[in-house]
This record gives sequence, structure tokens and C-alpha cells, in this order.
Amino acid sequence: MSGFEEHPLYNIMHPQSIAFWGASNNPMAMGSVQLGSLLAMGFPGPVYPIHPTEKEVLGLPAYARVSDVPGPVGLAVLVIPTKVVPEILEDCGKAGISAAIIVSAGFAEIGSDGRLLQQQIVEIARRYGIRFLGPNCIGAVNPRHKLNTTFYPYESGPGFIGMVSQSGSFVTQVFVHLKRFGLGFSQGLSVGNEAVTDITDCLEYLGNCPSTKVIGLYVEGIRRGREFARIAREVSRKKPIVAYYVGGSSAGKQAGLSHTGAMAGPDELYNGIFAQSGVIRAGSIEELFDFCWVLGSQPLPRGNRIAVFTNSGGPGAAAADAAERSGLRLASFSDDTKRALRDLLPHTASLANPVDMTFARNHQDYFDAMPRILLQDDGVDCVFMYFLMAHKRVIDSVIRAMMGDSADPEEVARQYVSAQAQVVSSLGREYGKPLVGGSFYDRSESFICELQDRGLPILPSPERAVRALGALYKYSVFRLGCSGP
Amino acid sequence: MSGFEEHPLYNIMHPQSIAFWGASNNPMAMGSVQLGSLLAMGFPGPVYPIHPTEKEVLGLPAYARVSDVPGPVGLAVLVIPTKVVPEILEDCGKAGISAAIIVSAGFAEIGSDGRLLQQQIVEIARRYGIRFLGPNCIGAVNPRHKLNTTFYPYESGPGFIGMVSQSGSFVTQVFVHLKRFGLGFSQGLSVGNEAVTDITDCLEYLGNCPSTKVIGLYVEGIRRGREFARIAREVSRKKPIVAYYVGGSSAGKQAGLSHTGAMAGPDELYNGIFAQSGVIRAGSIEELFDFCWVLGSQPLPRGNRIAVFTNSGGPGAAAADAAERSGLRLASFSDDTKRALRDLLPHTASLANPVDMTFARNHQDYFDAMPRILLQDDGVDCVFMYFLMAHKRVIDSVIRAMMGDSADPEEVARQYVSAQAQVVSSLGREYGKPLVGGSFYDRSESFICELQDRGLPILPSPERAVRALGALYKYSVFRLGCSGP
Repeated sequence: MSGFEEHPLYNIMHPQSIAFWGASNNPMAMGSVQLGSLLAMGFPGPVYPIHPTEKEVLGLPAYARVSDVPGPVGLAVLVIPTKVVPEILEDCGKAGISAAIIVSAGFAEIGSDGRLLQQQIVEIARRYGIRFLGPNCIGAVNPRHKLNTTFYPYESGPGFIGMVSQSGSFVTQVFVHLKRFGLGFSQGLSVGNEAVTDITDCLEYLGNCPSTKVIGLYVEGIRRGREFARIAREVSRKKPIVAYYVGGSSAGKQAGLSHTGAMAGPDELYNGIFAQSGVIRAGSIEELFDFCWVLGSQPLPRGNRIAVFTNSGGPGAAAADAAERSGLRLASFSDDTKRALRDLLPHTASLANPVDMTFARNHQDYFDAMPRILLQDDGVDCVFMYFLMAHKRVIDSVIRAMMGDSADPEEVARQYVSAQAQVVSSLGREYGKPLVGGSFYDRSESFICELQDRGLPILPSPERAVRALGALYKYSVFRLGCSGP
Repeated sequence: MSGFEEHPLYNIMHPQSIAFWGASNNPMAMGSVQLGSLLAMGFPGPVYPIHPTEKEVLGLPAYARVSDVPGPVGLAVLVIPTKVVPEILEDCGKAGISAAIIVSAGFAEIGSDGRLLQQQIVEIARRYGIRFLGPNCIGAVNPRHKLNTTFYPYESGPGFIGMVSQSGSFVTQVFVHLKRFGLGFSQGLSVGNEAVTDITDCLEYLGNCPSTKVIGLYVEGIRRGREFARIAREVSRKKPIVAYYVGGSSAGKQAGLSHTGAMAGPDELYNGIFAQSGVIRAGSIEELFDFCWVLGSQPLPRGNRIAVFTNSGGPGAAAADAAERSGLRLASFSDDTKRALRDLLPHTASLANPVDMTFARNHQDYFDAMPRILLQDDGVDCVFMYFLMAHKRVIDSVIRAMMGDSADPEEVARQYVSAQAQVVSSLGREYGKPLVGGSFYDRSESFICELQDRGLPILPSPERAVRALGALYKYSVFRLGCSGP
């Protein structure tokens, strides 16, 4: 496996300048929207729109041909009608451009005519030494490099999830999904028809990307199975890979074929490939990102014994049920743990696992002393914690009672919430064990927001949090060869 | 089955006045929080806090004993220490109160001492003819009656989901979850230890509630299996019932036992009970509400043939794969349908199912003509539709291009979005077929918000939308005895 900066995809994802075909002053045109995304992202290098007649496109000086461009071009982005792609790609080659993203569709995915045309552009690319993504792809995003050639504005910060997708939507339309959890991509690549760059190439590339902590794959069909397994096995020894594969059903296979022309195979075959190469399979796009979040942020558990910690019986039971169905089992606590819990819990609470604190007067215990007791227990490999919100009304009243009417409740609450978030979000790291939260509350609650921003995954339900811990355990079995005591 | 207003639970859920034990001027006390919720809800009848020493509680005149209260009391709410519950319940009986909610915990769920105490309060209730919810429950919510005795503020409007739960959290902490989709409860009941009122009673009651279109159950264990099956069978002939059962794994069983003391049974047993009585099983709390949303709002499909309509290949393939895994199959379109689609689709689009419109210039077709063509096809029983958002930037540009700089883009966009939402949200009703949307965008997009408010379910991912359609089909098999052509 070559180094990161030496990998052929590095140039596509880190251009110093971009020539852009297909943008115009018609804001409805797909190319205009995509160039708009790039400009909105604040790409710092020169961007050269290429347009046959316009002198200016979206406020930038436009050029009739790439040979007119006044400086070197690091990347060509093509959002143009199918039939002119070969000619323009030839122009790129002549201009010495070695990296391209071909967004244009109408190639192998539409049948035999398209396949011929695709073969033609592959030959042109070979002749000139051009490496490209696509055709029939939505582009790529590299937030740290301020690169976004896709159809959608990228509004999250740079993140740790590297995404490779046979669907452009699952790179771009999920921007809003990720943002809802404070997540972001390290890099995202839409591979389209994979004419010269396939999932396996991207996997190899992201395997060496230092800011990618986990790799998410959306798969309709893998073209080079043996090579994929070899590269995936190498990569997953270093960082987790999560795959969402939709071609295992006959309906999914049919849909994928007409989408990117990829050949799917039965679930058993793909499960075999994934299992031997340490790839964790997800069952939906939401689950793909849930798993990436937890696998990319948490240490590996040494076994499958989970402690479920709640102040509500229902979420505790739901988490316990989901744990068993995800390959985890409820930890049995040591006598020390039980003694320590008994000192802190009210008489109505449960000392067994799930630990149900019921109505707790002391929030400090819930967010500090109690999870600490569980993390300390040698019989506990990972902890799920349920996050319930205190009402603003209650918090305000408490603050007034403690501080008098002179206090600024907003500011006191902010400091209090922040201090609590700091404590609880560092516990997992402190004990070197996975700690994952679940809550029906979202980032509109400052506590949830701050916990997530401090690196503690808070998933939107107990079940989703626990299933992600189950996936993390599966990955740890591959990585550590451990199977629990 | 008795009529709605004659059902013994009607009085608990529709009191004219309330006596409240356990609230004080300590805002941290659980009772104070719960009384606060009731007041925040704007309960219109008189509320009488009962407190041994305070003359006023949360701004209301307080009374030392219920016998001091100046008017009739329709409902007693008890949030008091375990050991005084029998005495207070006796007071309630003597005062002629016939309905109560006992929030206090420490009864059957903690073991033998608690069971004795619970038996004691059951006997007191029998002696005085008091019907109560609980003990160890979080209370009840009836938004149309402005009743909320729970721990959490209810901020949604009145909805069509009737909820019965063995977890208080799954009635109350999900308020925010429901609000996120514009959903609400018709009524929600937390049954706690079910000393005299169990899930089956509540099911019978909601079966007759005219504003309840679907019933959601959170189940840790059913106490009267045969009676449950009988009532459920009667109710599900009229309206759908969705159950989330967590006691089927040994971990879930253990957790439930320590929570409400309910006896769980293996999945097979419960699957049998659910199947014979037409109850649809959900696999998580999110799925419970997803299913309730679609089953409570959509007409019954006459078969399992789904049309998947998208402008993105990935969501289409994901929906197709999820459809097959949920018992649906991709519809084959008639020649008329194919001809009609061909006239509207660009050459890069797929005419097969999933229909993938790819990049569409004409939004009007996507939201009107195209789904209409699919709904018209006799070979299509239900439609999933993917909702992609146009960027504000694009919309603004288009409006300026069409109307000139003098237009107020905000207002024009609002009207346009509203007109489009009106059209697409009425299509399913017009053709009498289920139409369900999926999108990664949420109610912060006015289009999504308006679609949802107009009764079109837009679920947060393609897979969740399609799985809910699969659940609707399962219910239709029970209701119509249909199994597709």
C-alpha cells in the first residue's frame, strides 16, 4: 500500500486549482449549482470556469477553452452533456491535467451504447495519464482542503468519517444528517460508474488518510472482490470499515444494476467477504453512520459485557434487549461495585444490570460517580448511558433557590451544563473503555450538543446506541482476536 | 366492549378537577415538577394541591387534607412516599374520589414487602370503588383535555397516536421525539405496575377513543395473555395496534422484571399472540412511532407491490432492498405507465422500478405528474417517494430570474413550497393508496414541515419509510385477508 500523498487519488482530493466545465449563469443548471458549492466552501485556489461563450460565470472570469486558462490546472470537473465528454477529456489531457471528476451521466449505467462511450473515455484517460472519479458520480468533498465539487453545500466542520459511495446522494444528501449529530466527513468520494477508480482504490487511499478514523462504504456491488478483500483486510487492521450493502436482495440488486451498473451478489457471499476482511456490515444508511460514529471515536472493548446505566426503566430494558440481540451480554457486577452503587442509589432503584437510578436528586452522581463505578469494574467491557434532560424550568428554579434572584440563570446554567459535560465526556477515555450515550433529546439541548462536541457519541435512541456498541464489539473481535472471558 | 365514555378509564383521562399530593414549593421535588407540567398544559378545571403545612403551592391555594377541598374532585394524583399511599388512598375513598393516578414507586417491583403493600392499596381501592393507574407509573397525558400529570412538558398538539406503556419514559421522554415529526398523542397512559389497570384495559379503552387512529404499546410482559389476545383482536379489526416488546431476550426479560415486575415470555410466544390478534410488532422505540405514523394515517394497500420513486439512485436502491426485506416487492409497471413515464423522464433516468428521475429540471412533474402516473397503475399498491430539497440558493436565483429583483424571494418561495406541498400531500388520498415519503431533511425545511402537517408522513430515511409501508401491508393482510394478486 503506497503512502497517503503518493496515492493517485491524493491529487483529485487536494487540487491547488480547478477548471470547471458545465457551470453557466443559469443558476438552475447542475454545473452552476456544483460550482456554487465549491465557491460557498471557500476553496482557496484559483477556479477557472470553462464556457464556450460567457466571459464571466458566477462572478469568475470564464475561458472558452482550457488552453486559454492562465495558470496550471490541478483538477478538471466535468458537468457536461455525455457526448462531449470524450472531446473535453482529450482537451484536458493535452493541457497536461492529470486529475478529473466526471459528473456527467449516460455511460455504462444506461446499457451498451453507454458502455462503448465509457470505454472511449477510459482509453483517453490512459493515453494522457489522467486519473478520474466517475463518470455518473456527484463529485467529492474534502472539508480540510475546502474542496466540495458536489451538488450540496457542506455545512459541517471537518470530521473523522471517510466515506466512499456508489451513490452520490449518500455522500451529499447526508450532509444534513451528519450535521444533526455534529459529525462530518474527513473526505467523501462518490465513485459513480467506477470506470478507472473503484471502491477498493478509495478504500486503500482512505486507509492511509491520517484524519480518517473510520471508513464508511455504501455498496451496490463490488467489482474486484478478491482485491477488495485483500485491501480491506489490510486497512481494517488499522482502522474500522463499515459497509452498507443493498445488493443482497433481488430488489436491491435490480435497483443497483440500473443505477451504477454494478453487479451485486447474494448476502451470503458479501457477508463472507466482509467477515474475512474485518468489515462490519450495517443495515441502513442511518446505521452506517451510527456505527461509524462509535467505531471511529471509541476504544476497543476487551469483551462483550455491557453495563446499562439509566434513570428510566423502559430505556434500560430496551437497551438490554437490543444488547443481547447485538451480540453483547449484561455484565454481572462485582461485590465492590454493588456496594458502591448501594451507597448512591435510592431504595426504589435497581442495583442489578441495567442500573436504574430512577428519580435522582443528585445529578452530579449520575454524570460522574455512578458511571465511574461501572467503568472501574473489571467485569464491565463497555457502558451504555441514557441521557435524560432536566427541564429548563427546574434548572432555573434550582439556580434561583441556590443563588438568589440576582443570578443570571442562563449563564449559571451554561457553566453548570458545560462542567457536567466535561466530566462525563472524559470518563470513557479515562478508563480506556467505550462509553456511548443515547437520548431522545438532540443538539438543540446545549448539554447534548456539548457532549457530542467533546467526542461522546449520543445516539438518538437507546437501541441505536447499543447496536453501535455491538458493532464495535464485532470489530474488536476481528482486531484483538478476543471473544470475551 | 363498552362505549368510550362509559369505560372506567374515561374518568381518569377526563377529570373536571384534580387533587394533587406531593407537590410543594421545592421546585426539585418530583411532585412539584409534575404539578408544574399540569399547570403549563393549561388544565382548565380547578387543581387542589394537598400539603400538610403549606398554605400555597406553586401559586395555588393548598389544603392540608382532601376533606378540606372546597369542590368535588374528579382525579387524585399521588406523588408521595410509598408508606403513606394507603392512608392517602383511604382519604380519597372517604372523600368520594373514584379515579386516581399513583405515581409513587416501591411496590411490587421491589419484591415481597412491596407486593404486600400493593395488595393493600388494591383492597382499599376495591372497597371504595376507586379506579387507578399505577403505582410506579409516570402518569397520563390527554392533550385535547389539557391533561398532563407527567414529569415532562407536552409541547406537541393533540395527535392520533394512542400510547399505552409499561415505561413512563416511553410516554413522556418521547414527547420531543414526536414533536420532531409534527406528531402527537391522542392520549398516553403509563401503566406502571398495573395493580388494577393493565395494558389490556387501556387497549380496550383506546379502541373506542374516536381521536385515536392507531395504538402504540410498549410491552415488557403481558399479564392476562388470553384476555389481551381477545381484546386486541377486536380492536385491531377497527384500528391498527403496534407493539414494541422487549422481554423476548433473556436480558430484556431480566430488565423488565426489575422495572415493573412484569413476567416476560420468549419471542415465539409473543409473536404468536401478536399474530393471532393482528398486532404488528416493532423492533425499537423509533420503529414503534414510525409504524404508528404510517399505520395511523394511510389507507390500507390491496397488495404488497411497491413503486419506489426517487431522483437519486442510492436512496432508490436502499428503498428497494428494504422493501424486499419487509415483505414488499417491486411493482412491474403497465405499458401505459412506462409510456407516460418516458414522456417525462430525461434519457439518463430509469423507467424501471425504482423510478429514478435523476437531475430534474421540472419540479412540478416530480411532485405531481410522476407520482400520479405511479398511483394510477393498477399494478401498484403503494408508493414510496424520496424527498430531496432544492437549495435555498437555487430557489432564490430562480425566483429572481423569473420575477426580477423586485420580488420578495422569501414570500414567493413560501407560496411556491406551500402550493407544491398541497398537491403532493393530497395525492395518496386522491387515489386511495398509501403514499409515504422519506428524506434526510427535517422540519427545519418548510417544505417537509408543511408536507407532514398536511398528513403526509415523511420519515427520516428511505429504509424507515419503506419498513413502515411493510408494516402497513402486514396489517392489511390481517384486516383485508388480502395477500396480493
